[in-house]
Amino acid sequence: MADTNQVILRYFSCRGRAQPLRDALSDAGVAFDDVQITDWRARPQPPEIAGLFGSLPTLTWGDVDACETLPMARLIGERLGHTRGLSERRVVELEAACSAMLTDVLVPIAHAIWSDLLFPGSDAKGVTARQSPRWRSKLARAAALLPRDRPFLGGEAPVIADFFLFEAFDTLGMLLGPALAPRLERELPRLTRLARDLLARPRVASVYAARPPRFTGRPDEPQVLARLHAGDPSELWPASA
Amino acid sequence: MADTNQVILRYFSCRGRAQPLRDALSDAGVAFDDVQITDWRARPQPPEIAGLFGSLPTLTWGDVDACETLPMARLIGERLGHTRGLSERRVVELEAACSAMLTDVLVPIAHAIWSDLLFPGSDAKGVTARQSPRWRSKLARAAALLPRDRPFLGGEAPVIADFFLFEAFDTLGMLLGPALAPRLERELPRLTRLARDLLARPRVASVYAARPPRFTGRPDEPQVLARLHAGDPSELWPASA
Repeated sequence: MADTNQVILRYFSCRGRAQPLRDALSDAGVAFDDVQITDWRARPQPPEIAGLFGSLPTLTWGDVDACETLPMARLIGERLGHTRGLSERRVVELEAACSAMLTDVLVPIAHAIWSDLLFPGSDAKGVTARQSPRWRSKLARAAALLPRDRPFLGGEAPVIADFFLFEAFDTLGMLLGPALAPRLERELPRLTRLARDLLARPRVASVYAARPPRFTGRPDEPQVLARLHAGDPSELWPASA
Repeated sequence: MADTNQVILRYFSCRGRAQPLRDALSDAGVAFDDVQITDWRARPQPPEIAGLFGSLPTLTWGDVDACETLPMARLIGERLGHTRGLSERRVVELEAACSAMLTDVLVPIAHAIWSDLLFPGSDAKGVTARQSPRWRSKLARAAALLPRDRPFLGGEAPVIADFFLFEAFDTLGMLLGPALAPRLERELPRLTRLARDLLARPRVASVYAARPPRFTGRPDEPQVLARLHAGDPSELWPASA
């Protein structure tokens, strides 16, 4: 019989879609097995690892096996008590924040990094230049949801959506590179403050320090980023309209 | 005061992310206002239309405003009673099916159609050839979730996840074109049956007949598809490994 408290999160040895989930579980002090699979290409992976759709991350929490990042985020938020006492409207808003950060910032940034392989003929620089204003706009809209007088979407303590905002902001900073970091912080001060307030929490600081160095599973991600950062930074992120 | 039963779904005049939601509401006999916005470029759209993230579809159902497709799908499923009596595990599975169909089939097909604009240097043919085996594999995994002895994921009546499977299957057929349709039906017989069983429901047949002709908001989508279908069909969809 399964241990009803056993929590296993399976992903690759990168941040990608899983990092906000790792952050939230860590911040809540949940002891979980952070499985980082390195031999994915030796397919097929058994369904208890790869989930219903053959895609990581997957999660086991006691007797529930979950797959697909947003349903997993919802389950984690519920089990951590993040939605307790909230109105249906508010629950849907927080889910929307996770969804927008994942599907309109984090996944598109992964696509940019993989662009020459997934979208033959394109490259990371062209895709980033085309799409970065949209990512910045999604982050600005997310920032506008944060309260003025309290640090997190969850109030005094973060909920899972806060970690999606944080990872989306942090990941865009990584993609755009050090030359554009000051502009990103200046244009999105509320997210800069969110990052600072989250990193002031010892468990978040710990998981941040220990996280995988790469965002995607692409082995040559450092070279892709180095090429991206080599040219004129303003090409990567055209001035806001 | 808002009419607690008023339902408004806002999207563009295309199928895209909204069609599974339109299907589910129609099949359930919910009278809803199917707003199709044609002047989106005249931004900024007010938040009551464009939602928290400036992105359609959005939904108003009585006193709840929702945005982002997957949270909206969950809300619709709940309000239509699709999750009543189901285990937490099963609810998460059905959410995962919506998520996989949306994020790994429908959205990538939209990206293929928009590829030359979103991923400069790429084109619809190269992206489709690169990604179609993955879309087919996601659909095969979704098909494997359908029961053998009953028509739908929901049993005798469809739940919202059934409509995501249906739209993903139908949309891949549209993208690959008439020359590949027989192969698609042969390789995915369970989804062919799902489509037939859904279209045998009068309200689904009605909404299917009345739906917008385009999948994306791209005005020249018919030309993009015509170019895609003009060459050797086997280039679009390499034989399964």
